[in-house]
Amino acid sequence: MADFPPAVRRLIASLRRLPTVGPRGAERLAVFLLSCDPAIANEISASLSTVRATIHPCPVCGFYAEGDLCEICSDPTRDSGQLCVVEQPGDVLAIEKSGAYKGLYHVLGGTLSPLDGVGPDELNIAGLLKQLPLDSDADGHTLCREVIIALGTDVRGETTSLYLTDLLRRYAVTVSRPATGISVGGSLEFADALTLTHALQHRTPIN
Amino acid sequence: MADFPPAVRRLIASLRRLPTVGPRGAERLAVFLLSCDPAIANEISASLSTVRATIHPCPVCGFYAEGDLCEICSDPTRDSGQLCVVEQPGDVLAIEKSGAYKGLYHVLGGTLSPLDGVGPDELNIAGLLKQLPLDSDADGHTLCREVIIALGTDVRGETTSLYLTDLLRRYAVTVSRPATGISVGGSLEFADALTLTHALQHRTPIN
Repeated sequence: MADFPPAVRRLIASLRRLPTVGPRGAERLAVFLLSCDPAIANEISASLSTVRATIHPCPVCGFYAEGDLCEICSDPTRDSGQLCVVEQPGDVLAIEKSGAYKGLYHVLGGTLSPLDGVGPDELNIAGLLKQLPLDSDADGHTLCREVIIALGTDVRGETTSLYLTDLLRRYAVTVSRPATGISVGGSLEFADALTLTHALQHRTPIN
Repeated sequence: MADFPPAVRRLIASLRRLPTVGPRGAERLAVFLLSCDPAIANEISASLSTVRATIHPCPVCGFYAEGDLCEICSDPTRDSGQLCVVEQPGDVLAIEKSGAYKGLYHVLGGTLSPLDGVGPDELNIAGLLKQLPLDSDADGHTLCREVIIALGTDVRGETTSLYLTDLLRRYAVTVSRPATGISVGGSLEFADALTLTHALQHRTPIN
């Protein structure tokens, strides 16, 4: 039985490492990359090399940065009194797209997962604490007054939120988290029981 | 509203050119490529460059070749009396995987589609005819005795099959095509009306 030539098989094997790409998808991508305009394949290859060479985590918040600091940390119009803690750089973009938040961010780089060997030391928690004023810090060397813990609401996210909340007791900041409840535009029929329980317990008065 | 840095946006834009990759998928791939082990990103970039540099269409059949001829054309054990005409190089692999065919292939490079500007001259039809013995060719300079037209059974594939069948009348070869009918393991319930009509018209005696 004939197969793709070795160079194509190597490309298929390397494309299979991408998330959401299975064996058939990798073959399809490889066939496209072989038969497409050379400019497209070159562009993908070049932009991939460039991105790895120029993008690094922002040393302050952990979001993607091209210069010294990321676009958000270097923007003087952002409210430095609010710090939103998220799991991944992609979460920063999700919140930015809502347009509802004008503060700064802190990317943890994951959530606690002892079974996978991810403990507090594997997450960027030290960098978070460094930005917060201690209770004893009378003159307040930082302006941060509120930390919003915006992690996922799965078991790992919840565990990490609880852990951080506990840590932050020593600091002179308000700690909050985004509301959980029914999606806006969502139907009650499709909400799961836990979400509905939470939404009912935290119902908001409307008159 | 903050966005990804320019280099990441360029990567996302170039990934969106891939088939089956939408805006969210491109973002997800880009985030993965940024945060994954550098070896994975390098491997993808390198294998993509290598594949474009080393793989070219086989000058005889049009399948992918790394050397002068492709693996199939350079295999002396293949039956050179049968020539299977397919649309794309990927179709060769699909037939090879079935293990049911030991002859040679000819890749057309598409199907007729006048509205998209694809006429007979845009397909590799000349290369196909060159391999076939003419009726007048008494001594038979080629061994080919059967052409199997294995194009898709959509409108474009059918049109192209009819066109080729007509062209091949001048040549001393048998022309055939794969049977159409219900998928093996398929349920009658899910077969479309046209397929069922065809399957009933071409029913095979079993006793």
